[in-house]
Amino acid sequence: MSSSDDSGSMVRATVIQASTIFYDTPATLDKAERLLAEAASDGSQLVVFPEAFVGGYPLGSTFGVTIGNRSHKGNVDFRKYHAAAINVPGTEVDRLASMAGKYKVFMVMGVIERDGYTLYCTVLFFDNQGCYLGKHRKLMPTGLERVIWGFGNGSNIPVFDTPIGKIGAVICWENKMPLWRTAMYAKGVEIYCAPTADSREVWQASMTHIALEGGCFVLSANQFCRRKDYPAPPEYVFSGTHEDLTPDSVVCAGGSVIISPSGAVLAGPNYNGEALITADLDLGEIVHAKFGFDVVGHYARPDVLSLIVKDDPVTPVTFTSEKTEGSQK
Amino acid sequence: MSSSDDSGSMVRATVIQASTIFYDTPATLDKAERLLAEAASDGSQLVVFPEAFVGGYPLGSTFGVTIGNRSHKGNVDFRKYHAAAINVPGTEVDRLASMAGKYKVFMVMGVIERDGYTLYCTVLFFDNQGCYLGKHRKLMPTGLERVIWGFGNGSNIPVFDTPIGKIGAVICWENKMPLWRTAMYAKGVEIYCAPTADSREVWQASMTHIALEGGCFVLSANQFCRRKDYPAPPEYVFSGTHEDLTPDSVVCAGGSVIISPSGAVLAGPNYNGEALITADLDLGEIVHAKFGFDVVGHYARPDVLSLIVKDDPVTPVTFTSEKTEGSQK
Amino acid sequence: MSSSDDSGSMVRATVIQASTIFYDTPATLDKAERLLAEAASDGSQLVVFPEAFVGGYPLGSTFGVTIGNRSHKGNVDFRKYHAAAINVPGTEVDRLASMAGKYKVFMVMGVIERDGYTLYCTVLFFDNQGCYLGKHRKLMPTGLERVIWGFGNGSNIPVFDTPIGKIGAVICWENKMPLWRTAMYAKGVEIYCAPTADSREVWQASMTHIALEGGCFVLSANQFCRRKDYPAPPEYVFSGTHEDLTPDSVVCAGGSVIISPSGAVLAGPNYNGEALITADLDLGEIVHAKFGFDVVGHYARPDVLSLIVKDDPVTPVTFTSEKTEGSQK
Amino acid sequence: MSSSDDSGSMVRATVIQASTIFYDTPATLDKAERLLAEAASDGSQLVVFPEAFVGGYPLGSTFGVTIGNRSHKGNVDFRKYHAAAINVPGTEVDRLASMAGKYKVFMVMGVIERDGYTLYCTVLFFDNQGCYLGKHRKLMPTGLERVIWGFGNGSNIPVFDTPIGKIGAVICWENKMPLWRTAMYAKGVEIYCAPTADSREVWQASMTHIALEGGCFVLSANQFCRRKDYPAPPEYVFSGTHEDLTPDSVVCAGGSVIISPSGAVLAGPNYNGEALITADLDLGEIVHAKFGFDVVGHYARPDVLSLIVKDDPVTPVTFTSEKTEGSQK
Amino acid sequence: MSSSDDSGSMVRATVIQASTIFYDTPATLDKAERLLAEAASDGSQLVVFPEAFVGGYPLGSTFGVTIGNRSHKGNVDFRKYHAAAINVPGTEVDRLASMAGKYKVFMVMGVIERDGYTLYCTVLFFDNQGCYLGKHRKLMPTGLERVIWGFGNGSNIPVFDTPIGKIGAVICWENKMPLWRTAMYAKGVEIYCAPTADSREVWQASMTHIALEGGCFVLSANQFCRRKDYPAPPEYVFSGTHEDLTPDSVVCAGGSVIISPSGAVLAGPNYNGEALITADLDLGEIVHAKFGFDVVGHYARPDVLSLIVKDDPVTPVTFTSEKTEGSQK
Amino acid sequence: MSSSDDSGSMVRATVIQASTIFYDTPATLDKAERLLAEAASDGSQLVVFPEAFVGGYPLGSTFGVTIGNRSHKGNVDFRKYHAAAINVPGTEVDRLASMAGKYKVFMVMGVIERDGYTLYCTVLFFDNQGCYLGKHRKLMPTGLERVIWGFGNGSNIPVFDTPIGKIGAVICWENKMPLWRTAMYAKGVEIYCAPTADSREVWQASMTHIALEGGCFVLSANQFCRRKDYPAPPEYVFSGTHEDLTPDSVVCAGGSVIISPSGAVLAGPNYNGEALITADLDLGEIVHAKFGFDVVGHYARPDVLSLIVKDDPVTPVTFTSEKTEGSQK
Repeated sequence: MSSSDDSGSMVRATVIQASTIFYDTPATLDKAERLLAEAASDGSQLVVFPEAFVGGYPLGSTFGVTIGNRSHKGNVDFRKYHAAAINVPGTEVDRLASMAGKYKVFMVMGVIERDGYTLYCTVLFFDNQGCYLGKHRKLMPTGLERVIWGFGNGSNIPVFDTPIGKIGAVICWENKMPLWRTAMYAKGVEIYCAPTADSREVWQASMTHIALEGGCFVLSANQFCRRKDYPAPPEYVFSGTHEDLTPDSVVCAGGSVIISPSGAVLAGPNYNGEALITADLDLGEIVHAKFGFDVVGHYARPDVLSLIVKDDPVTPVTFTSEKTEGSQK
Repeated sequence: MSSSDDSGSMVRATVIQASTIFYDTPATLDKAERLLAEAASDGSQLVVFPEAFVGGYPLGSTFGVTIGNRSHKGNVDFRKYHAAAINVPGTEVDRLASMAGKYKVFMVMGVIERDGYTLYCTVLFFDNQGCYLGKHRKLMPTGLERVIWGFGNGSNIPVFDTPIGKIGAVICWENKMPLWRTAMYAKGVEIYCAPTADSREVWQASMTHIALEGGCFVLSANQFCRRKDYPAPPEYVFSGTHEDLTPDSVVCAGGSVIISPSGAVLAGPNYNGEALITADLDLGEIVHAKFGFDVVGHYARPDVLSLIVKDDPVTPVTFTSEKTEGSQK
Repeated sequence: MSSSDDSGSMVRATVIQASTIFYDTPATLDKAERLLAEAASDGSQLVVFPEAFVGGYPLGSTFGVTIGNRSHKGNVDFRKYHAAAINVPGTEVDRLASMAGKYKVFMVMGVIERDGYTLYCTVLFFDNQGCYLGKHRKLMPTGLERVIWGFGNGSNIPVFDTPIGKIGAVICWENKMPLWRTAMYAKGVEIYCAPTADSREVWQASMTHIALEGGCFVLSANQFCRRKDYPAPPEYVFSGTHEDLTPDSVVCAGGSVIISPSGAVLAGPNYNGEALITADLDLGEIVHAKFGFDVVGHYARPDVLSLIVKDDPVTPVTFTSEKTEGSQK
Repeated sequence: MSSSDDSGSMVRATVIQASTIFYDTPATLDKAERLLAEAASDGSQLVVFPEAFVGGYPLGSTFGVTIGNRSHKGNVDFRKYHAAAINVPGTEVDRLASMAGKYKVFMVMGVIERDGYTLYCTVLFFDNQGCYLGKHRKLMPTGLERVIWGFGNGSNIPVFDTPIGKIGAVICWENKMPLWRTAMYAKGVEIYCAPTADSREVWQASMTHIALEGGCFVLSANQFCRRKDYPAPPEYVFSGTHEDLTPDSVVCAGGSVIISPSGAVLAGPNYNGEALITADLDLGEIVHAKFGFDVVGHYARPDVLSLIVKDDPVTPVTFTSEKTEGSQK
Repeated sequence: MSSSDDSGSMVRATVIQASTIFYDTPATLDKAERLLAEAASDGSQLVVFPEAFVGGYPLGSTFGVTIGNRSHKGNVDFRKYHAAAINVPGTEVDRLASMAGKYKVFMVMGVIERDGYTLYCTVLFFDNQGCYLGKHRKLMPTGLERVIWGFGNGSNIPVFDTPIGKIGAVICWENKMPLWRTAMYAKGVEIYCAPTADSREVWQASMTHIALEGGCFVLSANQFCRRKDYPAPPEYVFSGTHEDLTPDSVVCAGGSVIISPSGAVLAGPNYNGEALITADLDLGEIVHAKFGFDVVGHYARPDVLSLIVKDDPVTPVTFTSEKTEGSQK
Repeated sequence: MSSSDDSGSMVRATVIQASTIFYDTPATLDKAERLLAEAASDGSQLVVFPEAFVGGYPLGSTFGVTIGNRSHKGNVDFRKYHAAAINVPGTEVDRLASMAGKYKVFMVMGVIERDGYTLYCTVLFFDNQGCYLGKHRKLMPTGLERVIWGFGNGSNIPVFDTPIGKIGAVICWENKMPLWRTAMYAKGVEIYCAPTADSREVWQASMTHIALEGGCFVLSANQFCRRKDYPAPPEYVFSGTHEDLTPDSVVCAGGSVIISPSGAVLAGPNYNGEALITADLDLGEIVHAKFGFDVVGHYARPDVLSLIVKDDPVTPVTFTSEKTEGSQK
């Protein structure tokens, strides 16, 4: 479906609210396939997984880091976390691609990407033919994430023009970056995926706002995790305010949601448990929304406000003998 | 023919006064081809169509918009209108180009251009070899048009130096903008096309004035529409003063006209029905007119009056990896 | 209080939810003074009025405009509306300034500004000494507003550094423009005023999002209007979906609100009637919010995303003998 | 009356269509007074005289000039013409001022101004209190006028804000200069006076266009002259196409006219003889016109089209000891 | 040869006194080549042609212009004259450049330049390598010339520093403009070329004076024309005092001359017929002359007399996307 | 007579060609009175004397100055020369004024002015009522004059508007300064007096050129001196090429002349002996001349060429307690 015709076709989309099987990437992939199959059986054409679903979001961990110090335990934790991450491309990516092809769904998957010894919080895109389309690396990690994940750059902010609409992903607090969102709008995003780890209620306000601002569908996917979804202490420690946790304590409450361009909540938010949140997206609604407010069209003021997106690849080291544009293939 | 030699060659030009087949772009293109063929068979070398001929001029519509409000019916209307618009470039542009080549005419065509979810009132230019030359987007829509069409910018104001003279287009009330006209004069426009939707008699005064002011031929093309050329109510509603309309009521009276640089009316104005208004333009008359008054030559006072035309491309978002000027291709 | 110390001083702020006395600017100013006095008597240091409070927001009006046409009634309506607007500077501005001085409050006032024959939707700023500080003209009107109001430019987007914090204003759907908001954040806005005419519930999501995104207090002021607050028909007609209105019908439901940088609702939203919505703003909360997310600070990615704000004055005509920026004073 | 209130007051204005008493300036001033008295007795508040009424428009003369040559007769003709011109200020200006005061009318008077040995085609402005307000010197003479008149500069293009509206004057083919007109619009001209010597019918189109373009009243004053209004041959010779003239032959047919901002002809054009053309101008119509099209307001595109008017005084020689702008006073 | 050494080298220079082949530019170029070849064969290093040699000086013509009127014959005359002019750059300029290269002479050539529909009286400069160096457009036409030629500006007043000295040109009555000459002196002109159409005897006084005033060599080139060098009547009419002309009547008597910095006449003036006037210029004489009087050196009084030359390019319309200085190339 | 009426009055003017009685100022004044009486008896209304007539032009003297040295004889010579000079004002000025009144002539007199110990080459102006009008000090002495005379400044360049025309004076090689002449033209000089000591034939070319350039009458007055008009050797020595002089040798040949604005020589040049050169000046000719070329009017290009004349008084020492503008009263 191109953005410019008026076929009015509906797209069924599912947001996965589920937890990683921590430190066990093969099992996590198995779980992903089960969830995918379930969504597909319900007729879903697009499935969006949470941030860091493959590799895990190390909630409550400190990796032993304090200002001016690190602990041995933290080093060991990071080594395990590094081991659970995946190379892109790589065998896990191949498996994910074949899953998408098998169930004939488009898939947006949050992963922890390993590039040498630096990890990235990345989202992978697959089409319903079993092809890996590309990735987005989180531009700016939040808080302590900056200690375990590297920083993406402008060359990894794709929007894919697929038969079911233009799909892109913005991860967690990247969603709070107005210039970054505007870059996505300028690329014409219609199905705006927001894998996240933020389960606070105010997150809903941002999701609604973005749907209105961008004139797009917003699909926010978060994990729902109890304490027991992480390794038991002392292997894995929840620091800070979460220390009196029972195995059934909810440590990440979800809140996954699907919102239409007019700000209507189509499905979710769900704060109760693992779930598949599914809705039918009428892409024709976008034209109604943009009729009133087209953020990069009739409502822009390029004579006053002009955003430059430096999306050329940047690498710390470039070898002139290589004509390729990236460095980490 | 260059503007500076004195070959005195004549150019036969036709202004098309006809209505869009509303909401049916393929049929409108078929009609355009029939009209083009007719003009070509009469020896015409240049054919100018009215404003919004492809896509339609939604006369009398309100799109359900009041101050602070919009109606559902208006959204639905806009969605249909959006669907009838065309991408530039795109398949409809390809068809128009091949028509121009088939009948060996230069063609100036008013269209509704779809760029993502914003529409523009645009004029397309084609040469007699079947090539699409470029476009002009209306800089400033009038009245309620500002709700359905975006605003052009300074980078879309071309004048094409063709073998039959220098051709440009200024749409509807853009013709009332003295600075904009002066930019056209500075580009050397010789055949000034004025596709319009204004059928009032005072329009003729402006056309005559512009011919005199610019020392150029003015070719104004307007649609001639009866109520029945638009969908019947309740699908399509004429608001305001037009409410007691019969199917045969004239809702746009035309007034298409061709005027010489001395202010002489060469053909038209026609207020009677659909018609082809044709005249032979003696381009050599331009030198007579400019001998007396050359608005950007001997009669300019650049020491006192200096117009800056900011015609660099502007876009709300620019991606440095792209060399294209737009953002959503 | 400077924005950069940590005195933690509190600012009492009031948002006015009240209607214009339509077509009667002197009476509206009297009403403004009564409301200001009431807020001041409650200890308020900052009072924010709705969009277009002086001059009026012509809700439901069409000004007789359809695509390609205008009615005589619409012209007459506009002439009255033009007459109710105020010059800036001018006698009404003087009166507003003296009110602010008399009640010793900072005041943010939505007005309709008359500049020759074009009107602008403008917000005026006054300090508690009775000085007029400056103005912001709405950059981009929405929908039919584009027919009655001109377009602001980049030179009218001030943020004033006052003893009670850095104050700026963003009007109605300007709040949906991410680049424009980012310009405000870059100017360091701490008390972000959002006079509006949008009383839909989704407006609350945007207000919350902006507080989080900008790390600032958001004060949204809207009118509360019943049908009888506008002239009776046939003088004043509500078009569209509002036609079966009784005099007591609510035509604008308010929803004025004050939100903290953490997204907490401090007062409102009020959908019940005219009201003064008051809260104490602890400016020290801003540092908490920005510790996590500083949109133009540690969370910006200027290597990738760079916004250019062209805020030089632009005028259609500049006279070199004048050092002023406008042309028609 | 200020341009920005809405008093709706009417202004009665008269355009004088009469001929100079050639080579006899005192008699011409007497005639001016008679015409002024007649207009005033009809209640006129503003009286506009034709181009060069005082000093004369030397229609059909060649001043003996050919390319590369001059005749003695031409020199003698010029000496007489120079003698009939007036200094500004000077005794004739004083007399004109006292006339305006005596009859309590605003007066716009075309004169030939003598500044040393160069003549200028100038328009003088007087208020109804008997004060000389200032002058406009024609920027660019037309055709052979360039041999007898000097060129004005940007410092002589005033618009006077009077109790009966903002008044300016644009002389003859200056009216064809779009940038110059735009400067007038930017100064807020409401009563646009167009003293002229062009009696062709196409002149009417330009006057109508300007009224629409500028949203102003246009008052065009031309002389009505028969051959006998000029000295008899051989003293005064009509060259070119006029050689078979009888004393009663019409050599300048007038065509004086008053047009409203909507393009409606309020009085004239008169092609029959000397006449006073009078109309009541409803200045309130301006707001209707500008609601649709405000050339320097909501319909301007200063981001694209920006006119610089260099209106600083320029003189070939400046003496630093003088604070006056000219050199030979 | 640099202007500041004292090599005393001699430069042989030739002034061409010959007529245009009117309305036949190719034939005129052929004639120019013959004359150039003849001068070169005599050892000349610099050849100066008269004003308007290419394009023609339309002596005695009126172009049908009277005050307030134009004739059809005049329009037709102008169209032919416009056709005979040349574009700069353009094919004729290329031919002239190659001539200069072929005969290895510096060449100063008077032409009528066509820029769109306005003509300019221009002088072109070529070096002895066959390169076009640049041009000077006459600043201020004289008398009726103002009707057929546009006005130059301050950006076209070059002096070229060549191996045979610093060369500039001042056309016809520009030579009477003291400020303009002073600008040339300030640019260091050593070989001051004065192409002209003035054949009166008093012209010699000005040439001598300029040589003394400027301390430079003055080379004045004028056409020698008989009536038969112009088309026969009625196609071409001599107006004014020349009406009893026979084909052999001299209509332009020449008077071409070469004068040294001490006021000595080195060659000419010739009033007898077409001729090549040649002299050897001892550039070392300049230092003798300037020892006594250096107009921009020791004899200047910049504390009292200060000339500002505004030589920035000015154009009526500037397109910001172009880095060129003109608007109609 | 004002420059702006057309009275056509004639002015009879006389140029005095006579020698100083060297070192004898009282006798020189007696001689001046005799010459004045003679001119007056012939009906002359204006009498112009040569440069340095009172005080003497020390032709052929070296004042003992060589580079790096001075002689005692030179000092003695200067002391005598200083003694022969006059204070301005002073008794000799009073006598000159009463002469002018007695014979009822306007008088322009070259003198050597003594201001403390510096001498100036000055011209004094008197009216026919016996009033001293003012003075002009030579701006720039030539060659060795720079050793005996000081330099004037911009505050001493008057043009007096008298009943017989506007009169000014330019001394000797000041006449070669184009900017200085232009300042005179800008002041409207009509009777341009050129007292000089240059008797070379090329001087005539400059006088003719100035008449044409300035459109004014030029009256050049030079002394006619034989060797015996100076003291005999060894008291007074002629150095250089004049050493073989007999008492009757002509050392200054005169060449006084009167020229009209059209370049016609009205009287002189006289190279034969002392003489009164008289002519009738038809001031009406000025308008003919300026019709063709008005150097500071229609033929100026102030947009390109702008002369600043710094004519504020300048003095080496200013006492703030004095409010007078000069320093030597």
